[in-house]
Amino acid sequence: MHVKCLTFLTDYGLEDAFVAVCHGVASQLAPDIRIIDITHLIPPGDVNRGAVVLAQAVRYFPPSVHVAVVDPGVGTARRAVAVEAGGSLFVGPDNGLLTAAVAAAGGAALAVELTNRALWRDTPTATFHGRDIFMPVAARLATGVPLTRAGDAIDAASLVTLPRPYCRVTSGTADAEVVIVDRFGNVQLALTGTAAAEAGFVPGAVGTLAWDGNEITVPFATTFGDVEPGELVCYRDSSDLMAIAVAGGNAGRRLGLTAGTRLRLTLTLDQPSAGHHR
Amino acid sequence: MHVKCLTFLTDYGLEDAFVAVCHGVASQLAPDIRIIDITHLIPPGDVNRGAVVLAQAVRYFPPSVHVAVVDPGVGTARRAVAVEAGGSLFVGPDNGLLTAAVAAAGGAALAVELTNRALWRDTPTATFHGRDIFMPVAARLATGVPLTRAGDAIDAASLVTLPRPYCRVTSGTADAEVVIVDRFGNVQLALTGTAAAEAGFVPGAVGTLAWDGNEITVPFATTFGDVEPGELVCYRDSSDLMAIAVAGGNAGRRLGLTAGTRLRLTLTLDQPSAGHHR
Amino acid sequence: MHVKCLTFLTDYGLEDAFVAVCHGVASQLAPDIRIIDITHLIPPGDVNRGAVVLAQAVRYFPPSVHVAVVDPGVGTARRAVAVEAGGSLFVGPDNGLLTAAVAAAGGAALAVELTNRALWRDTPTATFHGRDIFMPVAARLATGVPLTRAGDAIDAASLVTLPRPYCRVTSGTADAEVVIVDRFGNVQLALTGTAAAEAGFVPGAVGTLAWDGNEITVPFATTFGDVEPGELVCYRDSSDLMAIAVAGGNAGRRLGLTAGTRLRLTLTLDQPSAGHHR
Repeated sequence: MHVKCLTFLTDYGLEDAFVAVCHGVASQLAPDIRIIDITHLIPPGDVNRGAVVLAQAVRYFPPSVHVAVVDPGVGTARRAVAVEAGGSLFVGPDNGLLTAAVAAAGGAALAVELTNRALWRDTPTATFHGRDIFMPVAARLATGVPLTRAGDAIDAASLVTLPRPYCRVTSGTADAEVVIVDRFGNVQLALTGTAAAEAGFVPGAVGTLAWDGNEITVPFATTFGDVEPGELVCYRDSSDLMAIAVAGGNAGRRLGLTAGTRLRLTLTLDQPSAGHHR
Repeated sequence: MHVKCLTFLTDYGLEDAFVAVCHGVASQLAPDIRIIDITHLIPPGDVNRGAVVLAQAVRYFPPSVHVAVVDPGVGTARRAVAVEAGGSLFVGPDNGLLTAAVAAAGGAALAVELTNRALWRDTPTATFHGRDIFMPVAARLATGVPLTRAGDAIDAASLVTLPRPYCRVTSGTADAEVVIVDRFGNVQLALTGTAAAEAGFVPGAVGTLAWDGNEITVPFATTFGDVEPGELVCYRDSSDLMAIAVAGGNAGRRLGLTAGTRLRLTLTLDQPSAGHHR
Repeated sequence: MHVKCLTFLTDYGLEDAFVAVCHGVASQLAPDIRIIDITHLIPPGDVNRGAVVLAQAVRYFPPSVHVAVVDPGVGTARRAVAVEAGGSLFVGPDNGLLTAAVAAAGGAALAVELTNRALWRDTPTATFHGRDIFMPVAARLATGVPLTRAGDAIDAASLVTLPRPYCRVTSGTADAEVVIVDRFGNVQLALTGTAAAEAGFVPGAVGTLAWDGNEITVPFATTFGDVEPGELVCYRDSSDLMAIAVAGGNAGRRLGLTAGTRLRLTLTLDQPSAGHHR
């Protein structure tokens, strides 16, 4: 397996030395590999968000070693693992962080528990496995050490998975969970563009959005610029999931929506006659 | 055109996958090009600030492809463009974001609209042109694809420009707009050091600063350390523009100044006799 | 001296062009050197925190040129220096920022004041020595320019040092200062794991933590996961210093502890019988 990149996602933040320490370790062990940071601003311990961001990022990379560490159970009995999928390797704690990315890459071809201490740093600590286990193993894998040398093969079906975000669609109605709210406040739903279109949620349609006793009307369009500044819009986003935005504003903050909130979208029967925006 | 670097400036933030996705796309198409992030913390949609930061950064780079995406009009009729200036290429939306940088690089030698879809990603979306258009085109240009292949040449005079920040200087008085307030709270004015010096604003002078009904006295000096901690100082900054700082403090916050505020500087006639700091 | 990396630590923040400008300067002068950012989020002017983060990071790097700029005295009489230690070079202001890192690398083998203007940018400004002096000198050193060419040798003993954080240990008691509070709110003390163990502070023990009129009980364990979510724990951290954490929470915020606070740890005599966590 030849990889060109090593990517790195954590909840370590950018104000301390943690990320740089791991870069240092990698640049010692794999000096010729390009290291690309995905993000280090996953909120501390937020495995769900880490899993979503990782899965959205990795599909755009060439064959890589992807290291991800959001690891509230560091130093406890949770396993450290590496998984081969779609020509790339995924290295991190076995707490669900990796599995959406592995699935996006086509599913696990091989999984190992990182039991071979010869690939770790000499004296691993109980609280910094990014530096002591995950990055040293990943860097060595990136230089061509075979995955089977990293430890004992395990059943991929035994890897911890996170619950799939809720989604149920019928004609004219969709119940879906918020997957993630991004920096712009765009609220991404666990509802694919294809499923939404089949249910009638297409540009030009108008729907009702209900959650937690709230109910609002929202037009469907192609992009933010199709509505006036400050107006809500529901659109098929760049990951092919339905999302809610405020043009030039922040939908997450305005509506008080966060990851995990469950919403109901209902098609308004009395559709405007023309008005296919674009 | 041979470039060594691809720089990247956006309002994408650092907490999501957006930036990494674009790095992934670039590393697939141009694996040997160094990618340098300028910033991704332009406030969402703040084209003005993006333009200022880009123009201040690019002059220090070797010949590069500079990709900038602050693009509230993504997916609407605004053009996607690439501009050659000073041996570098500037790629982004035609909304004024690029033009100060292009001017700083010596002005446009050639401009094209990015109409050649063969250089885009296969299936561009309406809301993520950084990933789907700007970065793929930029990465290909960085590997030597000629600019003329990216699309139809357009009149550089037709590129959208932003209003130049206000500045008017007479002897002893200057009216100028705040260009940017930086992380330290230093308030940069649209007043060059040369123009300020000709008007009498030199280290050792004392002036009055007035805006929005406020009026304060401020000494002119060479650097922050020339005044006591906590004191205001007006100085010629590292971009050769006049700026206002609080030594060890935050002038923007203390004075409530933000980009666009218009100020009047007036030389105090009764100058201190000695006291030329430094 | 052959180095592979140039590392970069500042208080410049990530929202302006400052960091990118320095990357641009480096990539012009040393196009083949890998540049790794340690952090740019040192709070403005916080030399103490900069020194701690730098010292914690550099030990994990291959031989490198380490550039660090937290420099509230920029443009004043403070010296600009470069120091060789442990096969690496440290470049920055002579204000104490470098000395903990230099000590961690084994102590200064050679120190010079950066007086050779031929290695600076042409026209250095009074307020941006990162761009004008430190980075150009560092980039040239990284390409093999000998340190002795950067300026006059100075007595390493004349370098400004910061006070060492307070620590005094007796059997059963330790007085120690907070060194740093990290992103997770983990509170690192100036108390080595070895010294703590000798004083009886080992996993399974229980202690009392007192400061500023506060007093709480805290168990000693190996990692966060050894206690229940939301509970306090004192452990030997990944830098081999004792630290206080809240499992899944933020100890710094909960306890109101910040760098410099002095604490007293006292072993509780009546130890639990079994309960050696792990």
